[in-house]
Amino acid sequence: MRIDLNADLGEGFGPWVMGDDTAMLDLVTSANVACGGHAGDPETMFDTLLAAAARGVSVGAHPGFADREGFGRRVIPMRAAQVGRLVAAQVGALAGIAALAEVELRYVKPHGALGNLAADDREVAEAIVTAVQALPGRLAILAISGTVLEQVARAAGLPVYSEIFADRAYLPNGRLVPRSREGAMLHDPDMAAERLIRFLDSGLMPVLGGDPIRLSAQSICVHGDSPGAVGMAQQVRRRLEGAGITVSPFLP
Amino acid sequence: MRIDLNADLGEGFGPWVMGDDTAMLDLVTSANVACGGHAGDPETMFDTLLAAAARGVSVGAHPGFADREGFGRRVIPMRAAQVGRLVAAQVGALAGIAALAEVELRYVKPHGALGNLAADDREVAEAIVTAVQALPGRLAILAISGTVLEQVARAAGLPVYSEIFADRAYLPNGRLVPRSREGAMLHDPDMAAERLIRFLDSGLMPVLGGDPIRLSAQSICVHGDSPGAVGMAQQVRRRLEGAGITVSPFLP
Amino acid sequence: MRIDLNADLGEGFGPWVMGDDTAMLDLVTSANVACGGHAGDPETMFDTLLAAAARGVSVGAHPGFADREGFGRRVIPMRAAQVGRLVAAQVGALAGIAALAEVELRYVKPHGALGNLAADDREVAEAIVTAVQALPGRLAILAISGTVLEQVARAAGLPVYSEIFADRAYLPNGRLVPRSREGAMLHDPDMAAERLIRFLDSGLMPVLGGDPIRLSAQSICVHGDSPGAVGMAQQVRRRLEGAGITVSPFLP
Amino acid sequence: MRIDLNADLGEGFGPWVMGDDTAMLDLVTSANVACGGHAGDPETMFDTLLAAAARGVSVGAHPGFADREGFGRRVIPMRAAQVGRLVAAQVGALAGIAALAEVELRYVKPHGALGNLAADDREVAEAIVTAVQALPGRLAILAISGTVLEQVARAAGLPVYSEIFADRAYLPNGRLVPRSREGAMLHDPDMAAERLIRFLDSGLMPVLGGDPIRLSAQSICVHGDSPGAVGMAQQVRRRLEGAGITVSPFLP
Repeated sequence: MRIDLNADLGEGFGPWVMGDDTAMLDLVTSANVACGGHAGDPETMFDTLLAAAARGVSVGAHPGFADREGFGRRVIPMRAAQVGRLVAAQVGALAGIAALAEVELRYVKPHGALGNLAADDREVAEAIVTAVQALPGRLAILAISGTVLEQVARAAGLPVYSEIFADRAYLPNGRLVPRSREGAMLHDPDMAAERLIRFLDSGLMPVLGGDPIRLSAQSICVHGDSPGAVGMAQQVRRRLEGAGITVSPFLP
Repeated sequence: MRIDLNADLGEGFGPWVMGDDTAMLDLVTSANVACGGHAGDPETMFDTLLAAAARGVSVGAHPGFADREGFGRRVIPMRAAQVGRLVAAQVGALAGIAALAEVELRYVKPHGALGNLAADDREVAEAIVTAVQALPGRLAILAISGTVLEQVARAAGLPVYSEIFADRAYLPNGRLVPRSREGAMLHDPDMAAERLIRFLDSGLMPVLGGDPIRLSAQSICVHGDSPGAVGMAQQVRRRLEGAGITVSPFLP
Repeated sequence: MRIDLNADLGEGFGPWVMGDDTAMLDLVTSANVACGGHAGDPETMFDTLLAAAARGVSVGAHPGFADREGFGRRVIPMRAAQVGRLVAAQVGALAGIAALAEVELRYVKPHGALGNLAADDREVAEAIVTAVQALPGRLAILAISGTVLEQVARAAGLPVYSEIFADRAYLPNGRLVPRSREGAMLHDPDMAAERLIRFLDSGLMPVLGGDPIRLSAQSICVHGDSPGAVGMAQQVRRRLEGAGITVSPFLP
Repeated sequence: MRIDLNADLGEGFGPWVMGDDTAMLDLVTSANVACGGHAGDPETMFDTLLAAAARGVSVGAHPGFADREGFGRRVIPMRAAQVGRLVAAQVGALAGIAALAEVELRYVKPHGALGNLAADDREVAEAIVTAVQALPGRLAILAISGTVLEQVARAAGLPVYSEIFADRAYLPNGRLVPRSREGAMLHDPDMAAERLIRFLDSGLMPVLGGDPIRLSAQSICVHGDSPGAVGMAQQVRRRLEGAGITVSPFLP
């Protein structure tokens, strides 16, 4: 049994850093690298790509709404076609840096509010998929498991991989429990790891207020920017490996 | 005899426009398209690329200092290696949009203060050339004739094309007369066209305060954003063609 | 009978201009000056304030969502209290420039999506009013006639003035017909002027699909950034004055 | 004997933080608060002002070049008059937030590259002083001791206070040893504190490569954003107080 661990990285900007990228890069097997939209700039992109490559970590582009003040967590009203252009420009920017750094870009995972929108909005999902498909390099999509983006990307013939979240509770419909609700977050790394191991064994994910649901996943998303992020990722990885699960990139 | 006409285009941002791109695209044969640094955004890039392609105009990337307020005309202090990352990200962004628009990107011409810096600073020129060389698509460099950038790009084995300016006076060392000096600008389209025709015939460019100098050029830069820009470009093109010179892209 | 004419001005940014501010400043009696959020920068603010003052035009602050790419026409998700801070910072920035230019700031009119939001959302309206009230100089509010912002500002004891639009059709509930609907815009300056003169005489505004409604207004908003803007403002002003109506600032 | 301790605070932006403002606010007596130019946004400004006021810390505005990526440490080419407008807008923005927060703004200290420029360039210093003088509230200037800004502000009749640096070595001409040179930084808090105590006693500051020079200072600048910043500030304050020196705001 094997699984990938991914985290959002390279989310600094100018003089500012976000989380402990170096520690996280020693723990994850795929890095979603910010592209200058919600976070990131040419220097941060370059350094993050080199640091990931030096550790054999797979690299994907992590485009988001061009909203640094909101860190890409607010929906900026745009038409779907505009989202496609946004994604093409951001992934292109990171691809330019990747060419300079001689690092291969493997996949695209939309960030924050853009990822949530693409989980439900078919037009937005299609615009993202069209942009990714147009770009060179046969990039894959890393989608939240069970979303419209996953379906649309699969229907378009793109390589698609799905992720579940290490520290977020699920609803019966497969969506995440909103952060504002009680029990939305799993703060105990042991419990989070335990849930993941059982899920990987059974394919069933416990939900709040219902029977476990069936999800498919080739990757587990761990957060890189919250307090305790490194500890959570460490414990999750240790426990997975202790259970005999191989942690390796979904795109080696 | 043949020559290319190029102009800086796609230099709007959000709701703002700069010059009359549609009129200019009917006159030039190569369009230097802003990449979101000194100007431009995903929408502007996309629209400009489509409009250029619809007219058979060749398209190049026009990266500049990431300084919208200064329109890329101020030197932002950066190390040369940082300039390389800046260029890689900006050209990459435009390349992403070009892939979505199914338009081929052919060359790179640095903008404003970055172009002037690369004309004299070998380290900056090398960083730009290294970035362009790393990017896919075997992009050419469009350099100001007689500059360090031209030499460095040629030495690196990149395809290089050189430009002269339709409406700027030259100094004996081949550099432009600074705008602040008397006689820096040629405002009369007829005189500008006359000078160009004679240059194309002789290879000699008149200078302020000296004997004409020898320059090589495959393209003439006309400005798109000044008052009278369209009239200047129109007259230059009409007079060149009247003199039997073919106006066509340096990279068809 | 007297009325004010206001327009949104100073909406350039860096090298970019929006509309013909000089022509508009010769026609309006109040200028809503962008504050660096949706548009404007220190240079534009300074120049616009001086140009307005030189013509005896009253000056107000025109804060908007900090969204240049969307020109403040998109709702950026924020809590009401954050809107208050946004408005305080933007009006403060313009007040700083006004102090340097020795021009008095008289009122605040929220821009675009922020103005529309404050027309209906009590919390947002209260946050704006609280911010304006906290600022020195006893600034007035210029609100769209019949809106929640007008009510909230009045209840808080701020000086309040109301505006109607020269070239926009109204709905029976007093809101503007959305631009996407047929008949939303009045393009004929004569018809627009005629409607205004009758309104000023009767207090009754024609609406699409209903009986005329009663509105109160001390100012007429004319647009400065659309094609034909100057012509519309000219004709409106000429016709108003021809009908014996004095055009003068609501805050002289 | 008494002295002020000041630090640059509120230098986050959107989701990003810089240093440990809460810890620093427990140690300093004056806070230089970023104004949205090199750092800061309405939320950060508001929170920082409230946190400072809650601890009785005096608050000043800390304007800088509008260059977030460079954190205000790069000289952005501008004419002196433009610097004046920049400062007026930024201090105005913070003053707007201060009005909303009901906190009094007391002084202005230019940041980073702008502060260094104003230390030597008379025109820039005059533009800053003119802007500060125009703003309401009779703001003081906090200048680096011995600089042109200090002289110009004094000549203009503004209240002026001078600072020395806790952890930077001096040159015989009173300027700081550039960070690139050996010995530029004092890393040992005990040695730094010792030097300060002797300086406060004697008025003489040791320099690299010369005899001690006479400086005047009402405040000591401690850095808030470097590793070890809090430890340095703690030790400096403890040692000063241990030596019987009262640490209190220069503007109480």
